[in-house]
Amino acid sequence: MSRHLVLQTDFGLCDGAVSAMYGVGLSVDPTLNIYDLTHEIPQYNIWEGSYRLYQTITYWPEETVFVSVVDPGVGTERLSVVAKTVDNQYIVTPDNGTLTHIYQNIGIKEIREIDETINRLPNSGESYTFHGRDIYAYTGARLAANVIKFEDIGRALSVDDVVELINPDPVVVDATIHGNIDILDVRFGNLWTNIERELFIELGVVHGDLLEVTIVNNHRQIYKNVMTYGRSFADSHLGEPLIYVNSVDKLGVAINQGSFAQAYEIGTGTDWKISIRKIAKKTII
Amino acid sequence: MSRHLVLQTDFGLCDGAVSAMYGVGLSVDPTLNIYDLTHEIPQYNIWEGSYRLYQTITYWPEETVFVSVVDPGVGTERLSVVAKTVDNQYIVTPDNGTLTHIYQNIGIKEIREIDETINRLPNSGESYTFHGRDIYAYTGARLAANVIKFEDIGRALSVDDVVELINPDPVVVDATIHGNIDILDVRFGNLWTNIERELFIELGVVHGDLLEVTIVNNHRQIYKNVMTYGRSFADSHLGEPLIYVNSVDKLGVAINQGSFAQAYEIGTGTDWKISIRKIAKKTII
Amino acid sequence: MSRHLVLQTDFGLCDGAVSAMYGVGLSVDPTLNIYDLTHEIPQYNIWEGSYRLYQTITYWPEETVFVSVVDPGVGTERLSVVAKTVDNQYIVTPDNGTLTHIYQNIGIKEIREIDETINRLPNSGESYTFHGRDIYAYTGARLAANVIKFEDIGRALSVDDVVELINPDPVVVDATIHGNIDILDVRFGNLWTNIERELFIELGVVHGDLLEVTIVNNHRQIYKNVMTYGRSFADSHLGEPLIYVNSVDKLGVAINQGSFAQAYEIGTGTDWKISIRKIAKKTII
Repeated sequence: MSRHLVLQTDFGLCDGAVSAMYGVGLSVDPTLNIYDLTHEIPQYNIWEGSYRLYQTITYWPEETVFVSVVDPGVGTERLSVVAKTVDNQYIVTPDNGTLTHIYQNIGIKEIREIDETINRLPNSGESYTFHGRDIYAYTGARLAANVIKFEDIGRALSVDDVVELINPDPVVVDATIHGNIDILDVRFGNLWTNIERELFIELGVVHGDLLEVTIVNNHRQIYKNVMTYGRSFADSHLGEPLIYVNSVDKLGVAINQGSFAQAYEIGTGTDWKISIRKIAKKTII
Repeated sequence: MSRHLVLQTDFGLCDGAVSAMYGVGLSVDPTLNIYDLTHEIPQYNIWEGSYRLYQTITYWPEETVFVSVVDPGVGTERLSVVAKTVDNQYIVTPDNGTLTHIYQNIGIKEIREIDETINRLPNSGESYTFHGRDIYAYTGARLAANVIKFEDIGRALSVDDVVELINPDPVVVDATIHGNIDILDVRFGNLWTNIERELFIELGVVHGDLLEVTIVNNHRQIYKNVMTYGRSFADSHLGEPLIYVNSVDKLGVAINQGSFAQAYEIGTGTDWKISIRKIAKKTII
Repeated sequence: MSRHLVLQTDFGLCDGAVSAMYGVGLSVDPTLNIYDLTHEIPQYNIWEGSYRLYQTITYWPEETVFVSVVDPGVGTERLSVVAKTVDNQYIVTPDNGTLTHIYQNIGIKEIREIDETINRLPNSGESYTFHGRDIYAYTGARLAANVIKFEDIGRALSVDDVVELINPDPVVVDATIHGNIDILDVRFGNLWTNIERELFIELGVVHGDLLEVTIVNNHRQIYKNVMTYGRSFADSHLGEPLIYVNSVDKLGVAINQGSFAQAYEIGTGTDWKISIRKIAKKTII
């Protein structure tokens, strides 16, 4: 049986681009099983592409091949690569930062440059704008279908040379945790921080404790208020904010059945800082 | 061969949530066939989740396993269940009203509570906010892949105890039918009522007859006008309204190539009442 | 093995319509492989449905069966047909112009009317508004699954009678190419013209040359400026416009990491004219 092939892009689903990638894959092997991660990565947002890979990859079987195409530099000298993770999964992608979270949080054990002289859809020579179809889907499908081996992708690169986006670690200073808002749980407007549950627990916090949360964007304070550390959204009243552990084991900030991000116009990235400080023990509400 | 697994959520497709559910399913059984109902249920809208299941389930093969996750009460005491319909299809869902239309219109013959001590993704213990992945997709996949039997899901519950949303029946008073606007044919802006074709026909209506349609929201009249009963949209002129029988054999209200819902700002639910009265016989246009 | 079945509609993915089509297909043959082209064709936009088929079909294997349902005339006398292309692929569709680009650019060798007395989902008799489910998905699935042969679809029609939308050819007058803006690369706001690379090259243009581009809508000039002919977006500075060869080997107009369509409010169709004139040789930037 062939491996699973999973596609991620910033192409959206409004036109034929993703379907052409599926067709290329099924032309390589008509029995290939192809799936989507998401195609709604905001255009050119390499950071979010990197995060969504990290968020989902551990739930897929060993040997799964991921193709991720968020590629503002298509046609430039950026390298096209296949990374092999420590868990024996593959990521076919431009090496433009897309591997940041996988590299830092999961681990890459080998990486190879795609040799385009052998790994390019036949007769696709005059188009320089759709490597997602002509290089990445084609190479991912051939790898997933065992038409080529990982060793035949192209020359080995040094894993340490993988392109990394800036991704600061959270720190604890004077019993206050300082971190970043990495990304949104888009549909529900929850903030996902880079603060791991384990670091948070070091503050001696238990469910029900009250915390002071401060959000700053480019040195401007956007939000400062007190909320409870809950197990789940339902641990706060409808419309109330809370701190919780999200589905990637990091701290999230939510409003029960509301959108925290919309309510306070919160964005994401290294300019969006969040600080969390314990101010009181568990109270009976 | 394993059964088909069909996923429905209010998660949207912008992030990695649905893909993680696919990965969990394929980790249970790499040959599993997984499909989508929709992931665009408006957030927390249990009614619409219930309706979309009812709208599609009869078109899927016997033994299909549906997973439906619209779950504003995640983390509360609401039960997680698997229902077996009279047509031998399965629905894995929080028991929060999602089973309303299936229960009332198709029939449920058995229902079991999911025993989370045996039906929970291994090592997912510290996250309390993504039961869609950790409980529902995992259980649905194991049921679809014949890893567990329905009898092993957990204790049997009484079918009569299923949680039902308020869902009034249409009535005929003085040759006028009174019903509700249940839902929209979202993309085209058509109104879908709860009035079955058979009840409507009892008024002695045939294609081409004129009907007076009144729409009231919370006792405020929103629309009152005359339209034709047509076989299809093309039975009215471009831009004209009509009454027709929709694809679930109930009455719909549409504007030919326009959006009735947008034109008159019509919503859905038990506060949105519609009355239909025959006022003239078929006329030759 | 059955053929691949690929669905395209203007139904969107917000409700159960597409899922019901999948269910119908899998009820015909539970092992059928079903895929999406797109379901986000703008409502009733037959032209765009035709274009998306043309844009993707060549990337799919021989014998693939496409079902395309953009059907403002559902319930009228428009014919339901299956076309067989010169490359032995099939398109199941209302004959309302959806076959325009396939007919003109790829070629159709046979076309048959769907005999609805034998090719209609059993017990779907009272609904006249969802032929996508009851006729097209059902027929496409039966063809893909080899339940029926192409010859058994219904009577043969003349290929020359296929309904064509107006689709003018580009022309060269006094070293200026005059063409149309056919469609958008929606997500990125790039304009896709009907001007083939080969015709463009006849002007003696090479990468780096400067061109004057004029866009006119209904005789009103919308845009007139000079841009470079680049190999890829990255051949212009961030925010600069360029001419390039797109992924269907025609001329595109883009802004590097911006949306040309949004910046100048450009639309598509035969009322949107574009002229391109070479004004200078390659310059070193």
